[in-house]
Amino acid sequence: MAEMSPPIVRTAAELRARVAGWRAAGERVGLVPTMGALHAGHLSLIRLAKAHAGRAVASLFVNPTQFGPNEDFAAYPRDEARDAELLASVGCDLLYAPGVAEMYPEGASTTVTVVGVSEPLDGAARPGHFAGVATVVAKLLLQCGPDIAVFGEKDYQQLQVIRRMVRDLDIPVEILGAPTARADDGLALSSRNAYLTPAERLAAPELHRALAAAVEQLHAGRPVAEVEAEAIARLVAAGFGPVDYVEVRGALDLARLGPGAARGPARILAAAKLGRARLIDNLAV
Amino acid sequence: MAEMSPPIVRTAAELRARVAGWRAAGERVGLVPTMGALHAGHLSLIRLAKAHAGRAVASLFVNPTQFGPNEDFAAYPRDEARDAELLASVGCDLLYAPGVAEMYPEGASTTVTVVGVSEPLDGAARPGHFAGVATVVAKLLLQCGPDIAVFGEKDYQQLQVIRRMVRDLDIPVEILGAPTARADDGLALSSRNAYLTPAERLAAPELHRALAAAVEQLHAGRPVAEVEAEAIARLVAAGFGPVDYVEVRGALDLARLGPGAARGPARILAAAKLGRARLIDNLAV
Repeated sequence: MAEMSPPIVRTAAELRARVAGWRAAGERVGLVPTMGALHAGHLSLIRLAKAHAGRAVASLFVNPTQFGPNEDFAAYPRDEARDAELLASVGCDLLYAPGVAEMYPEGASTTVTVVGVSEPLDGAARPGHFAGVATVVAKLLLQCGPDIAVFGEKDYQQLQVIRRMVRDLDIPVEILGAPTARADDGLALSSRNAYLTPAERLAAPELHRALAAAVEQLHAGRPVAEVEAEAIARLVAAGFGPVDYVEVRGALDLARLGPGAARGPARILAAAKLGRARLIDNLAV
Repeated sequence: MAEMSPPIVRTAAELRARVAGWRAAGERVGLVPTMGALHAGHLSLIRLAKAHAGRAVASLFVNPTQFGPNEDFAAYPRDEARDAELLASVGCDLLYAPGVAEMYPEGASTTVTVVGVSEPLDGAARPGHFAGVATVVAKLLLQCGPDIAVFGEKDYQQLQVIRRMVRDLDIPVEILGAPTARADDGLALSSRNAYLTPAERLAAPELHRALAAAVEQLHAGRPVAEVEAEAIARLVAAGFGPVDYVEVRGALDLARLGPGAARGPARILAAAKLGRARLIDNLAV
């Protein structure tokens, strides 16, 4: 019978001791930072970490500093026992689940900020969000010291912010991006899908469909502004609102594309409320 | 005959390779970040690093991001060959001397900021200074991965900012503070003393004498505000000006002391221009 939970540690010191033991045995370590409320998307990241590094550590920490004052920090779904069971089912070797006092002891005063890539899109819609993300991810990487760390492309801008931060601060780790896991109807898996009513759940895949249609239109040569406006109208018609953004941007720096043709790879990204849930999604163009 | 220079590397990759070699052999590594223009104070830090860790690495990088627009970045004294010779004389094992493009490649966008301890004193007098310091020190620590890093107490606020940053970001390194090295007449050794004219050099020890007298007066029970004002007047009378600050603060958080008696250790810190040089100094109270 399978284990019902990987070993759980709650302090950076215990985490470091476990990782040091593996490293002393010549093993490699992959970290998958999560906020819990795990779904098949997270589990695919754990599998990727194990495939690339042998040992997989998941962290579970609902990071208060990346939530705005009117966001869902208090309501964010939490069920550690269920998460631990899911992690065990994919062979996760260790669960690091620190409390807030372990991550932000009294007197904590340091913030990591990334300009540029963190400013548009969710950076504009959620002031302070990416500073919270960059700071907690820097801490988790430096607490664990993994060889690789895996993040999902579902949070595409987050992935680019983290890549930039790791490069700029010379954190010695390789960042792997993993493809977005989707339900059969195309909806990107997200812990926040739990907020959807049954009727909203039926409407939700329209976000992915609108982006997929937009990509086809862009390939057919339609102007970016037209395609973005049509996608927004489509989401509003399906019951989304407000739509924070649907935008085509450079895939690496997330800069606005010039008036001419897109140079280099591009990405279309969207964020919109549907009932109580704020959903995000993105596709390569 | 002694070596005239330790080995010099200019990229983080070469630095990491050297450190990995030592670590594989079971050796420990101490890092001493410098901006060059070395004097006996720096050399005492190298000796301390060797005494505590066995292997000592000095970095030499005049970090542009910690200089304000009207400060002395361009004029800052630079003589790598002389610095290398001095480092060899105290057994420094490696000199890491990266260029600006190695430290801040195109697109660099990440800043580490520390609130609280970095805000008063030099933080107020030199806006952006400590964000530049915290960011470059985080990078140097993560590029090198030392067991310990040594900083002088002469830059006392810098030392506290770095201690806070290392703790907050969980950088796995021990920070050692080293006592201020002084000339026979009490002047704290500083690369910027090179800016002093002979007449200014004669007046310069008044900074240390004013602080030492202030400490005596504080021990005798005189009120903090009076003691600070008298020290400032004494510096002005000796030809200093402007005096940025002479302030008694909490030794760890650099917070203003309450109206009652000082609780816990305190520190008196001063900064003042003398001719072209901006001098700083501090003493335990």
